[in-house]
Amino acid sequence: MTSKSIYVYDTTLRDGAQREGLSLSLNDKLKIAQRLDDFGVHYIEGGWPGSNPKDADFFRAARQMTFRHAKIAAFGSTRRKDTTPDADPNIQALLAAETPVVTLVGKSWDLHVYDVLETDLEENLAMIAESVAYLKAQGKEVVYDAEHFFDGYKAKPEYALLTLKVAAGHGAGVVVLCDTNGGSLPWEVESIVGRVVAHLGAPVGIHTHDDGGCGVANTLAAVRAGAVHVQGTINGYGERVGNANLCTVIPDLQLKMGKQCVPPENLARLTELSRFVAEVTNLGHASHQPFVGTSAFAHKGGIHVAAMRKNAASYQHVDPALVGNLKRTVVSELSGRGNVLDKAAEYGVDLDSDQARHVLQQIKELEAQGFSFESAEASMSLMLRRLQPGYRPPFELLDFTVLVQQRQDKGMCADATVKVRVGDQVLHTAAEGNGPVNALDAALRKALLSVYPMLAGVRLADYKVRILDSENGTGATVRVLIDTEQELRHWSTVGASANIIEASWRALADSLEFALLNGNAQGEQ
Amino acid sequence: MTSKSIYVYDTTLRDGAQREGLSLSLNDKLKIAQRLDDFGVHYIEGGWPGSNPKDADFFRAARQMTFRHAKIAAFGSTRRKDTTPDADPNIQALLAAETPVVTLVGKSWDLHVYDVLETDLEENLAMIAESVAYLKAQGKEVVYDAEHFFDGYKAKPEYALLTLKVAAGHGAGVVVLCDTNGGSLPWEVESIVGRVVAHLGAPVGIHTHDDGGCGVANTLAAVRAGAVHVQGTINGYGERVGNANLCTVIPDLQLKMGKQCVPPENLARLTELSRFVAEVTNLGHASHQPFVGTSAFAHKGGIHVAAMRKNAASYQHVDPALVGNLKRTVVSELSGRGNVLDKAAEYGVDLDSDQARHVLQQIKELEAQGFSFESAEASMSLMLRRLQPGYRPPFELLDFTVLVQQRQDKGMCADATVKVRVGDQVLHTAAEGNGPVNALDAALRKALLSVYPMLAGVRLADYKVRILDSENGTGATVRVLIDTEQELRHWSTVGASANIIEASWRALADSLEFALLNGNAQGEQ
Repeated sequence: MTSKSIYVYDTTLRDGAQREGLSLSLNDKLKIAQRLDDFGVHYIEGGWPGSNPKDADFFRAARQMTFRHAKIAAFGSTRRKDTTPDADPNIQALLAAETPVVTLVGKSWDLHVYDVLETDLEENLAMIAESVAYLKAQGKEVVYDAEHFFDGYKAKPEYALLTLKVAAGHGAGVVVLCDTNGGSLPWEVESIVGRVVAHLGAPVGIHTHDDGGCGVANTLAAVRAGAVHVQGTINGYGERVGNANLCTVIPDLQLKMGKQCVPPENLARLTELSRFVAEVTNLGHASHQPFVGTSAFAHKGGIHVAAMRKNAASYQHVDPALVGNLKRTVVSELSGRGNVLDKAAEYGVDLDSDQARHVLQQIKELEAQGFSFESAEASMSLMLRRLQPGYRPPFELLDFTVLVQQRQDKGMCADATVKVRVGDQVLHTAAEGNGPVNALDAALRKALLSVYPMLAGVRLADYKVRILDSENGTGATVRVLIDTEQELRHWSTVGASANIIEASWRALADSLEFALLNGNAQGEQ
Repeated sequence: MTSKSIYVYDTTLRDGAQREGLSLSLNDKLKIAQRLDDFGVHYIEGGWPGSNPKDADFFRAARQMTFRHAKIAAFGSTRRKDTTPDADPNIQALLAAETPVVTLVGKSWDLHVYDVLETDLEENLAMIAESVAYLKAQGKEVVYDAEHFFDGYKAKPEYALLTLKVAAGHGAGVVVLCDTNGGSLPWEVESIVGRVVAHLGAPVGIHTHDDGGCGVANTLAAVRAGAVHVQGTINGYGERVGNANLCTVIPDLQLKMGKQCVPPENLARLTELSRFVAEVTNLGHASHQPFVGTSAFAHKGGIHVAAMRKNAASYQHVDPALVGNLKRTVVSELSGRGNVLDKAAEYGVDLDSDQARHVLQQIKELEAQGFSFESAEASMSLMLRRLQPGYRPPFELLDFTVLVQQRQDKGMCADATVKVRVGDQVLHTAAEGNGPVNALDAALRKALLSVYPMLAGVRLADYKVRILDSENGTGATVRVLIDTEQELRHWSTVGASANIIEASWRALADSLEFALLNGNAQGEQ
């Protein structure tokens, strides 16, 4: 690391998950952790193992994974009052997580010591000292999060500073100043961080929230004052309004302040990372967020568009390519024939320029209906292959029926029938399921398995539904994404319709068609 | 006005309307202008009369209205090169708008003078001088917007400053420094504004964008350096990422920096204003925005909730009542009994400690099945009410059937039948829809509307689906969230099941039950 290096500590999986409306499954957490590692963050906070069983499961599963850049951190608080670390279940849960890093949160604000912990200032110092020292002695790298540090410093500066000295003195590798309530202003943060850096003699970090709309600015101000470790979350997810958005903080630090957070080639994957995380959380991707939003470099005003045609620097603050985003003109969609040709080459499909134009038009029509191929490359590749001369689909749907019934006496049931053609055969099957899509899936597999036994190893791994034009209520267009896996191969397909059964059917049929075409070949990642 | 007064200049109707996806009708603009005036902003920028006929119509209609606090401003650019103001159609359109205030935008950055205007630095100064002087001579109050001021100042400080001196010297009442590309950082803004204030001898304003995530912080930094006029938009709408969000700037200035923007009693209507504008624009209200978002004072973490019950200041930066918002407790799998008791009190439901334990257990069981009450408070409140002695539901489901068919000859269709009991009546209806849930919704409404005509005004605003244990593929548990609205009231309900139809049914039934129980009472926020 050089003097310009900043350590990036991601807490999407812990503080980010405190966002209202966000709930991550174990599998979601593992997928996000893998991507964060690929992107190059230095620390990934996985959760609070003492607080719920899902977080403990995460650490168990994470131990089986390989992280190339990031260290995994488990989060928890200093020991309870009037006990010892080895008798404290929360501290023991941190050890049981078996992570290289433990992040301990402790109190710096006397109001919290008195009113929340209900103890005295001396005991709080002992809680910090003993907890840090104990974990350090167990071989952990300790990050110390000083909760409500700025409020504490404003109330009683000597005491707040003392809590940091105790943490650093007992082995914390970095002390992180947290603006837990998110209400501080940038010049306060800069001045207080500057004073701490001058007095502490240990590395200082920053953790901010956006309650006053200054979450990003406060983080930048802290770095300006000497902080070398920044905590935040992808897309700014977090408790209440949210945490400092790393998708804004990282490019600001790197492109505007000359700091190094991640390698520049990784920075160009920031937009992709932001969208990936939004996709996994099933929250819509915030289109107006800085740098990575779809609208971040979208120009609507007539004057802006005209000026941009003369000089691209005239209405954009950075080159969007640096963060993997695109300049867009809102009135006229940019042609993407080049993208189609790139994609065809990737799948080994020969395409001439006319065919590329045709595919592009088809994509635009389908996207206008609600499809989205960005996260469904298998559907995209099928569209390309179907253009190849002599392409014959492995099966063809003729009819289906789905019946769902709720009866007072027998509860809920779902049945489906499917009629498909495979070569010269017409197969007509029926099956039931615990829901309509499950019944349809069962009936389709029943038909196809007799001809294609390899489908027995193909498993639907995830099924996601998003409503598009939600102002139409239950009549809205529905987009279904299906992730399928077979051993180590994964692929994703898409369907869209106002009818969720039809949308599901299309994604399901693409998923199995892709499986059959790629049965013995390399699949999509 | 005192030395602490800040003039608030709202540009929601002009710069805000540049947001991708936002389109305002004339009537929308008039409604918003009226509300902005009631709220107490000092200036309302209505549009650019030279750029489109809708804006010219706005000014014509606005002349018939009474504004008690605000002055209406028309926006346009300095005269074109090599002409005179009285021969410039844009300047003449500004006069024709007949507003007391005209806002003129001009160039401060030599790059723009050369590359965009394609003229020289002297002619640009003449364009500013003559345009300001001409409008001033016509009796207008002139606001001068210095476009790209910060970039211009960084490139060529003397020239940038000279453009301001020319504007002020020819009669501009205030010169507004615009960070048009939104890429400046707070300390740059503070330093440059400070230098301008020291050298100019005329009032200085600030106009920022959020491209670097510092839009709000940049505005605050400018005020700290002496700016007395702030421009921004409600909910931060604007070109690309957006403008400085006045719903954040105003409370920051007023509650944290001791400035006065609007009377304190009006500040308490800020949340209402923010929601109203979101409603009119037909964009969803951003739930995670500072101060006014539904989640801005929502506490999810169990530790936070426990601490808040001891001391409300412990996890909130300001009292939410000051901006007309509410503290909320989010109930989730991490909750304790405290969260349930808080929630019952919020809904005015009496609950003893045993009942709270019972509800908590029910929540945990349902959440284990896939329900999630944190974003479905109406379902949560129904659960509480159903515990009240003598509770009678307004309707009761007996049976339903849903049939979805795909036939080669007739395409896709969806039909539903519903049998419900209302009092002593049994209603049995059938309907079709463009999908199974839509058909079910239609059949249910058909049954209930005959008894409860008020349901005609109840609209499903959003329908979200999340797959939970996705490793079960199409057999996975599905969680459905439905957002419902009736005029300005909104509520959310949840259903979960392995069967998407059943999950949708439960959310749908809760949504209408909640509507009927709250028909004439105050609704949930």
